[in-house]
Amino acid sequence: MDINKLPTIPAGPVGYLRRPAHTPVDQPAPNPLCTLFGIRYPIVQAGMIWCSGWRLAAAVSSAGGLGLIGAGSMYPEVLREHIRKCKAATDRPFGVNIPLLYADLDKHVGIVLEEEVPIVFTSAGNPALLTPRLKAAGRTVVHVVSSVKFARKAQEAGVDAVVAEGFEAGGHNGREETTTLVLVPLVRDAVQVPVIAAGGIADGRTVLACMVLGADGVQVGSRFVCSAESSAHPAFKEAVTRVEEGGTMLTLKELAPVRLMRNAFFQEVQAAYARGAGVDELKQVLGRARAKRGMFEGDLDQGELEIGQVSAAIRNVLPAERIVQGLVDEFHTAAARIGLNGRSLMAPWQHPGPDQRLPK
Amino acid sequence: MDINKLPTIPAGPVGYLRRPAHTPVDQPAPNPLCTLFGIRYPIVQAGMIWCSGWRLAAAVSSAGGLGLIGAGSMYPEVLREHIRKCKAATDRPFGVNIPLLYADLDKHVGIVLEEEVPIVFTSAGNPALLTPRLKAAGRTVVHVVSSVKFARKAQEAGVDAVVAEGFEAGGHNGREETTTLVLVPLVRDAVQVPVIAAGGIADGRTVLACMVLGADGVQVGSRFVCSAESSAHPAFKEAVTRVEEGGTMLTLKELAPVRLMRNAFFQEVQAAYARGAGVDELKQVLGRARAKRGMFEGDLDQGELEIGQVSAAIRNVLPAERIVQGLVDEFHTAAARIGLNGRSLMAPWQHPGPDQRLPK
Repeated sequence: MDINKLPTIPAGPVGYLRRPAHTPVDQPAPNPLCTLFGIRYPIVQAGMIWCSGWRLAAAVSSAGGLGLIGAGSMYPEVLREHIRKCKAATDRPFGVNIPLLYADLDKHVGIVLEEEVPIVFTSAGNPALLTPRLKAAGRTVVHVVSSVKFARKAQEAGVDAVVAEGFEAGGHNGREETTTLVLVPLVRDAVQVPVIAAGGIADGRTVLACMVLGADGVQVGSRFVCSAESSAHPAFKEAVTRVEEGGTMLTLKELAPVRLMRNAFFQEVQAAYARGAGVDELKQVLGRARAKRGMFEGDLDQGELEIGQVSAAIRNVLPAERIVQGLVDEFHTAAARIGLNGRSLMAPWQHPGPDQRLPK
Repeated sequence: MDINKLPTIPAGPVGYLRRPAHTPVDQPAPNPLCTLFGIRYPIVQAGMIWCSGWRLAAAVSSAGGLGLIGAGSMYPEVLREHIRKCKAATDRPFGVNIPLLYADLDKHVGIVLEEEVPIVFTSAGNPALLTPRLKAAGRTVVHVVSSVKFARKAQEAGVDAVVAEGFEAGGHNGREETTTLVLVPLVRDAVQVPVIAAGGIADGRTVLACMVLGADGVQVGSRFVCSAESSAHPAFKEAVTRVEEGGTMLTLKELAPVRLMRNAFFQEVQAAYARGAGVDELKQVLGRARAKRGMFEGDLDQGELEIGQVSAAIRNVLPAERIVQGLVDEFHTAAARIGLNGRSLMAPWQHPGPDQRLPK
């Protein structure tokens, strides 16, 4: 059966079925994120410090997703270089992720505007800080949130979409600790802009599950850390493929909550907590440039290794194109299992024989 | 379009499509949990201390799900009384949840066997402890796990199914902090027995999302706390309907991790952590009978209020039958959005116009 030949149903109110007024009834509604970004698949590669430079962003965009350069670990002129190299490497849209708490924020914004980057993701801060300026310059703006409260704030600030990122995500994270499964439906019901689910997504069935929850697409981080094009140190990539369940933890909540791989440095942080360390002592334990040391330079003991919980399901390093295509193929497989066969969906809910009775 | 008239596809390897050898190809495969328990809908009501006595279990079972009596808060003779009343109130199968760390464990098991309870869920302990004895007595045994490691152990011990319970679940919880979105696919791929997803599930789209992840059905706790038939104190039920995001936290990890509503007692625990309290001091802060005081007696300040993260999405108290039917109806709606229309599913993945090019 060709699922593309099944009849359509009228537009629903929820993400993946939203149908613009101009779409004929017998045509599927385009995915709002594909339309917004001008991309083929609603798969965004997270802009990650030390891992996502121009090589990764260009590879993901060329493969049909949306690649993001992670500005958080770049000096302004380094960012400019990455943007130019990314433009040279792909003719597809790409974006830059800018953490709002970064010291060089103004310079980063200036470069993104000068270099005509069409799409900007902002994170870790107040969405009202940059959104009006970026929108006035004609850019597509997306803000990363970990709560409904900030999703609403972002929408009020005028963003084009929000990323709803759950507790399982790697790196910096929300104080509410709301998981992706709980967060996405809450955010979906609270805002009208497209919603991108993030946190815990490394295969195609999870992509589909997030769209069932109401997301219009996904942002994927850890899986792309383990790509050939990621600028993470090979030792870090290798370590990610060996993470077991419980191998990452959210910590340093008094500074800014961050999900890290358990290593010697993580144990030092835990020891500091055990002796009742305050914020100042924690800052001292953290020190400076720990993330670079771990993720970029490959010091697996003393480095800060930011990675998501779903690393427990990642077991290899692949070219980014194969990761994108794998997500799409697995999505199709999972969708076909449900979508091709209405009866197989209903079967779980109708016991085929007579109801059993309990002996009295 | 009648989705029940769509053609079927061959059986796949994953949960909701597994097809027993005797099922004709033009008949949908029965859900393995419906077959296992003899129920209509693969919706299990979690066996919760102080909340799920015979009234709730009987109401859920009568509505087509599987009701569980929570033995953890019952003296042995109280448990016997609840089992007998449940049998009198419904002719459908129901079960008992037995936490394995309970002092009166042996007496509980004896009563469950004497009273011919057909289904036993065990939790919080080693699955090898009771499974052989219960299986030898012909009972259906399910064990609650929070990791792949324990899912495998449970399967080796001979259980009929496992509950894969994520970090977002209320009450006692795993040390790995793995969320439902990450845990369910990992467990699905690791064991052959049916998998029941738990943690973060209070509506039908989330039920479907969990089945997309590979679960055969779901276990729902917090939503049933806020049922008319739940034995939770009305003040506790009311408090659950007012929980905001971030309103619950996993704490007391040094004793046994437990997700609690933030209240005055929770703040006392946090204060103890801030002064570097050890296990003994934490035990003293916890004291005795805190859960009863909060959940059953309605002391919202000094009681221990066990509840899931998804309480942020629960806004009313409903009869259990309406909760079951609502989950099923919402599941159908979410499934129809995907299942009725293959093209709407594919639409997200095919940009309808020409690919956009970035200006150079």
